[in-house]
Amino acid sequence: MPHETGFDFQHYNPVRTIFGPGSLEHLPELVGKRRVLLVTFKSAREIGLLARLKGLLGDRLVDLIDEVPSRPELKDVQQAHERIWRERRVELVVAVGGGSVIDYAKALLCLPESGHFFDLITRSTPVVKRLRMIAVPTTAGSGSEVTPFSVLWDTRDANPTKFTLHQSRMYAETALIDPELTLSQPKLVMRNAGLDALSHALEAIWNVNATPMTDLLAVEAARTLIAKLPIAWHFQGHLKARIMIARAAWQAGLCLAQTRTALAHALSYPLTIKQGTPHGLASSWSLPWVWQQAQNNSAERDAVLSRIYGPSETDPVARLCELLYKLEVPTEPKAWGLSESERARIVLEHMHNPKGHNFIAKGLRL
Amino acid sequence: MPHETGFDFQHYNPVRTIFGPGSLEHLPELVGKRRVLLVTFKSAREIGLLARLKGLLGDRLVDLIDEVPSRPELKDVQQAHERIWRERRVELVVAVGGGSVIDYAKALLCLPESGHFFDLITRSTPVVKRLRMIAVPTTAGSGSEVTPFSVLWDTRDANPTKFTLHQSRMYAETALIDPELTLSQPKLVMRNAGLDALSHALEAIWNVNATPMTDLLAVEAARTLIAKLPIAWHFQGHLKARIMIARAAWQAGLCLAQTRTALAHALSYPLTIKQGTPHGLASSWSLPWVWQQAQNNSAERDAVLSRIYGPSETDPVARLCELLYKLEVPTEPKAWGLSESERARIVLEHMHNPKGHNFIAKGLRL
Repeated sequence: MPHETGFDFQHYNPVRTIFGPGSLEHLPELVGKRRVLLVTFKSAREIGLLARLKGLLGDRLVDLIDEVPSRPELKDVQQAHERIWRERRVELVVAVGGGSVIDYAKALLCLPESGHFFDLITRSTPVVKRLRMIAVPTTAGSGSEVTPFSVLWDTRDANPTKFTLHQSRMYAETALIDPELTLSQPKLVMRNAGLDALSHALEAIWNVNATPMTDLLAVEAARTLIAKLPIAWHFQGHLKARIMIARAAWQAGLCLAQTRTALAHALSYPLTIKQGTPHGLASSWSLPWVWQQAQNNSAERDAVLSRIYGPSETDPVARLCELLYKLEVPTEPKAWGLSESERARIVLEHMHNPKGHNFIAKGLRL
Repeated sequence: MPHETGFDFQHYNPVRTIFGPGSLEHLPELVGKRRVLLVTFKSAREIGLLARLKGLLGDRLVDLIDEVPSRPELKDVQQAHERIWRERRVELVVAVGGGSVIDYAKALLCLPESGHFFDLITRSTPVVKRLRMIAVPTTAGSGSEVTPFSVLWDTRDANPTKFTLHQSRMYAETALIDPELTLSQPKLVMRNAGLDALSHALEAIWNVNATPMTDLLAVEAARTLIAKLPIAWHFQGHLKARIMIARAAWQAGLCLAQTRTALAHALSYPLTIKQGTPHGLASSWSLPWVWQQAQNNSAERDAVLSRIYGPSETDPVARLCELLYKLEVPTEPKAWGLSESERARIVLEHMHNPKGHNFIAKGLRL
């Protein structure tokens, strides 16, 4: 039997998703009688979201972490983890925010046997207890509401470091996705999140971990994002476009949970670390170039990619460049402070580290 | 906001799927150290499958039910349930067979608070304990390995009755799908199971419970089944066709778990009860007629249906009739002992009972 995606595969995602405009109102029934820690972002207070959540949670709300930054700091999360598991007051975590808020909350959920937070990163002792989580994304992009990953940062010295926790017991109990919540996000946040979702979808296709399920979802998500992101960019209050983008971001998140990421994400982290480039931008500007690298390595992967723009489109990479141009995202490395050779060096380094094996190509065409 | 499928939806399926030819060999690692009840079908012994399973399970195998018939009898299941929960020797159920074997096994998994088996059907007391299950389908069709349903029969008197258990705690822990196992099935069993899967896929589209996820999976499953069933029918040992059919049956099962069934299944039960027509046949012969009834009720549902044969196909119902003809399945009611008016009566009765509301049309065009 020749190797083809889908002759052997696994699929698993235990998260219950409830999707729909206005669905935030279901929060009280989902919480029930459990005592809640709410984790959210600083400006949730300014936009009135915190007050709304306090109203919905009532006396179930017993603890609050409301200043999660866009890159959660490892030591802050560690301190919160120690406090939560020492106090043992909370029965459920409700995370309301973008990917960083949900990632922060996820990192609190599991107690390793040793009791030491760092053992969650190294996975050196098993998880012995865990809290459940309801994840409520306010951006349409990260997919964190349906993945078992949490990305944290240590920026205390000159060489900031990224840590990824990966625990199957960190999956949310419920992803409550209310696309109306994305309407309060600034235009740039909306765009960057949407591009992050597009990056998850494409990276799931040019990925050695692709499955029949991720192929279906990734093509659908990419098609929707390509069609709807320019509409949401020009007409910010366009709820129907936001609904479609939120659904696509969820689909791309389901892919990400299964395949993890590939080359475009590898290229993103040095930019985010050195220049503070927002994750969604950093992980998407290189997509046309990575698509070029992905082409012609596998007839089967090429066939899946060709479903995005349809079989009659002869230059999908040019179409993708046009999309990014419409969204005011440059695609040349020098716009991001990289020379062509620096880009190649980052990618080749990545290909030779153990996490770099997800990308389907094993070398570069320069 | 106009009502369209996918503006509001839910999605949930916690089953871990492991798919691939030869994947039955993973059974020991999935079982681990747990004490196993094996549930299987009578001829598993004759075809050597029982011996193979005994070899794989070794001393983990502590209990065996190996004569599950094609329609599990309520009173047998009830007796087995009482025995299992009285003895409390078993930690895990391994179900190896078609839909009826997996349905039988599922009905053993949950202990209601009252201890009475019938409370699982009425759901009058909550489930307080449950056994985990690994489901290993040997046919590609029922989808039972990924649904929370169990269909049982009471055939003791002249009017046999069908019972459906629906418990979210009956989802399998793992669906272990090894398409090689389907090669041992007789040709007619293969066809009938495959048509059952086709019926699940189509009934998920003309369904008020359809979601963006079920639409994606149902179209893909239907396309695959339409292309591959004739190949498997003519070339029985064609493993690649069997792999594709097994994958499609799994996808259709994921749809079924979310949407449940609609009109073609409603038409099937009287045939199965009165004439013993195998379920897969009884639920598929009417699909072209039901498709006709489903058309022109919703532009959005029509658009999803049109993706099956592609937008340039002007008469998909005729193509579907041709498929059934190729598979030697008549599509006229009189071939199934029904007059046109009897068919209409059955359907209209179904439409007026509470479970008949899944179908998108609310009346018949005769």
